[in-house]
Amino acid sequence: MSTEFPEIGGTQDVFYGRPPAVPLPMMARAEGIRFWDEAGKEYIDASSGPMVSALGHCNPNVVAAMSRQALRLDYAYPQIARSRSNLDYAARLSAMAGPGFERVNFASGGSEAIDNALKFARQYALATNQASRRRIISLDPSYHGATIASLAAGGNDTLRPFFDGFAVMAQTIRAPVTYRLNPGETPESSAAASARELEDTIVALGPETVLAFLIEPVGGVSTGAVVPPAGFFTAIRDICTRHGVFLIFDEAICGAGRTGTFFAAHHWPDVRPDIIVQAKGLGAGYAPLAAMLVSATHADTLARLTGFNFSYSYNANPVSCAVGLAVLDEFDRLDLCANAIRRGAELRTGLEALKESCPLVGDVRGLGMLLAVELVADKATKAPLQQEFRALDRLRRHALDLGLLIYARETAGGRFGQWFMVAPPLVATHEDTDLILERIARLLDRVASDAVAARLL
Amino acid sequence: MSTEFPEIGGTQDVFYGRPPAVPLPMMARAEGIRFWDEAGKEYIDASSGPMVSALGHCNPNVVAAMSRQALRLDYAYPQIARSRSNLDYAARLSAMAGPGFERVNFASGGSEAIDNALKFARQYALATNQASRRRIISLDPSYHGATIASLAAGGNDTLRPFFDGFAVMAQTIRAPVTYRLNPGETPESSAAASARELEDTIVALGPETVLAFLIEPVGGVSTGAVVPPAGFFTAIRDICTRHGVFLIFDEAICGAGRTGTFFAAHHWPDVRPDIIVQAKGLGAGYAPLAAMLVSATHADTLARLTGFNFSYSYNANPVSCAVGLAVLDEFDRLDLCANAIRRGAELRTGLEALKESCPLVGDVRGLGMLLAVELVADKATKAPLQQEFRALDRLRRHALDLGLLIYARETAGGRFGQWFMVAPPLVATHEDTDLILERIARLLDRVASDAVAARLL
Repeated sequence: MSTEFPEIGGTQDVFYGRPPAVPLPMMARAEGIRFWDEAGKEYIDASSGPMVSALGHCNPNVVAAMSRQALRLDYAYPQIARSRSNLDYAARLSAMAGPGFERVNFASGGSEAIDNALKFARQYALATNQASRRRIISLDPSYHGATIASLAAGGNDTLRPFFDGFAVMAQTIRAPVTYRLNPGETPESSAAASARELEDTIVALGPETVLAFLIEPVGGVSTGAVVPPAGFFTAIRDICTRHGVFLIFDEAICGAGRTGTFFAAHHWPDVRPDIIVQAKGLGAGYAPLAAMLVSATHADTLARLTGFNFSYSYNANPVSCAVGLAVLDEFDRLDLCANAIRRGAELRTGLEALKESCPLVGDVRGLGMLLAVELVADKATKAPLQQEFRALDRLRRHALDLGLLIYARETAGGRFGQWFMVAPPLVATHEDTDLILERIARLLDRVASDAVAARLL
Repeated sequence: MSTEFPEIGGTQDVFYGRPPAVPLPMMARAEGIRFWDEAGKEYIDASSGPMVSALGHCNPNVVAAMSRQALRLDYAYPQIARSRSNLDYAARLSAMAGPGFERVNFASGGSEAIDNALKFARQYALATNQASRRRIISLDPSYHGATIASLAAGGNDTLRPFFDGFAVMAQTIRAPVTYRLNPGETPESSAAASARELEDTIVALGPETVLAFLIEPVGGVSTGAVVPPAGFFTAIRDICTRHGVFLIFDEAICGAGRTGTFFAAHHWPDVRPDIIVQAKGLGAGYAPLAAMLVSATHADTLARLTGFNFSYSYNANPVSCAVGLAVLDEFDRLDLCANAIRRGAELRTGLEALKESCPLVGDVRGLGMLLAVELVADKATKAPLQQEFRALDRLRRHALDLGLLIYARETAGGRFGQWFMVAPPLVATHEDTDLILERIARLLDRVASDAVAARLL
């Protein structure tokens, strides 16, 4: 099935471009940080899938909670009925998020939740006589989901023909970068320039037309785990406040403890976004689950004026909320935010050492257990590997062979470099991080050998 | 919590308009077609929530399958790995759908799947040198989901200010209606006029700009279970074919056996849409699940050209697919499509009798177990009840008191009437339909008494 089409059906990847660049193993089972395919081969999950499986795989406590809820109250439609798992989960997440995030609205994935955040902001603007506020500003590059609207809200020029006349694209500003800087730039000056561009763009569009500034506080799959300097967040918060623009943190990837705090926003306690979206790690692979958190002030004002009456069939569904609660129980029991800091530091130290020893590693960056390794052909010029070398496909293929599942990406046709994420489940032990580092070292050796053979190094 | 706001958290409805029009019971447990709230009061689920709970509640076979899968392989990211539950489920759904629907793409809800269908059509147009095809045509009224794009793809004039400059709205044509007809119109002539308007609209927009015509083959929450005459489907298929426009059937509500065939499209075997979306009943309340079915011709052509590379974290996730498979097993074991026809006929006979006896019932319509009861103040003129009477809130309140959960709606400010759905779980027995009809009779009596007291009857 790798290159030919089945008569009927086919796994989801049958829709992707042909021939598949990298074989996709048929998994038989999983446990902790490991998968086994149907041939019995073992793989380490070095990226938690797409930064989803925060607890590792097949956690019996979460599955027990899921099953218990599904046998007692499988479903309740929020327009008609309430469930205690929804009530308890919302209260718990709110309490963890702290002041400014008293209300929680659930969905079945980050894309739905980003759509909810944008709808909430738009509905709030309409209800408060600011109907002209409709433009979204985001970073170039950025990725905020795969619904039409969340995709269009991201910054990706290659999608311009796709969206032309089909959806309203965000206005984008240059993302703050820490590695592939312009001549003379520092991470701080790049971030300052980005913040200035935000304000300039708001003013140019007319502040009365700008609804929201949408940003991943720690970069995900578009910039590869870029962490802007703290001053950036103070600056954008100030700009958004002065112009009455919703500041939305997309924590789909960097949330749920991955960066060492459950809410990434808590890294900058003086900076409070208006809306936080969390997703992947919340359900941790056990249930499609996402949350949008807003202040009681915003939510209750809107509820009194018109209400935020949009809903999906499965938002706040009892089973997903029970899974979400059980995931939080495991976070507490296993102290996973602390583990993300501890294991993240071990991984980072090991990756920094690889950066010294491997000619291909140009940059190691990230926060907690959301780390990225960027590849280059030349460390001095930071020139990426030639497209013809297909570095990411080579990485993925060698990784599979070595029993390592990695998440490797480039965005905007490679304009912002090529990297892979190192983001294993937050339950990883010291022995696990050692093993992951060892396999990554062998992986980089193989790709470097290929590059030498191709006369790229 | 009904009218006041909690300090933190709150059930999902805390976001809705205040004060809540109808109290929302806190459910403690559910089984089959019944719920019990925390005070022990019993309710019959007469609408399967929002037409979701096809199997009734807390089905132990489905929960066992869910739990088994989650303990063995909880999650696999389709960009990296495959799962057999995904493979088996796609093959089974394809086989059930028959020729023209060889490929299945999953999502975590109808809104995501509608977004997928529109993205698929758009990507296909781009890949086949039809980049100018970008406009969606849908019915007025219609509802296709709650993401920004799926909401904008529906026909609802009251959302025009919300979407203005914020999203691209569909072009709409008048929905075929069977009850609230213009003078001299019949259901057949209404449908013919709607089909003519479709062609006129395509021609007016320029066929080379039209991407898709999106329609619920049997009306859901916008028209209230309207069933157009068969000739309508032949006509729209012909029009879409001649103009190269994707015909998309949104079976989120009318699919999954609710109308007596698993695919609503199978009611008109000579009419084959290009894309079918199914949702709610597929996961039946046990897992957020939806599917988009397309032909191998379309999917494989696109896969060879560019691929349909958009994905969500949780699409094709092993647990949701295992739930979907277990739901299909229950459909087979309990012969639920046949039951939908049998119990649907019983319900319809009972509702038709109520139409004779109750002065409020203007129309009974639908197919299988997707039935709607439309209320009027005057059967001769079909005049709806005055807005001030708040008929739907009265219905919901009396229903709760009588232990009945119903789904009552109006669209576009009541322009198309007020109705409630009668769509219990497909597992309902003969005794269940008797009980539901008895409670509906008492419900209508109470609302009629209110109307008499308000001097509306």
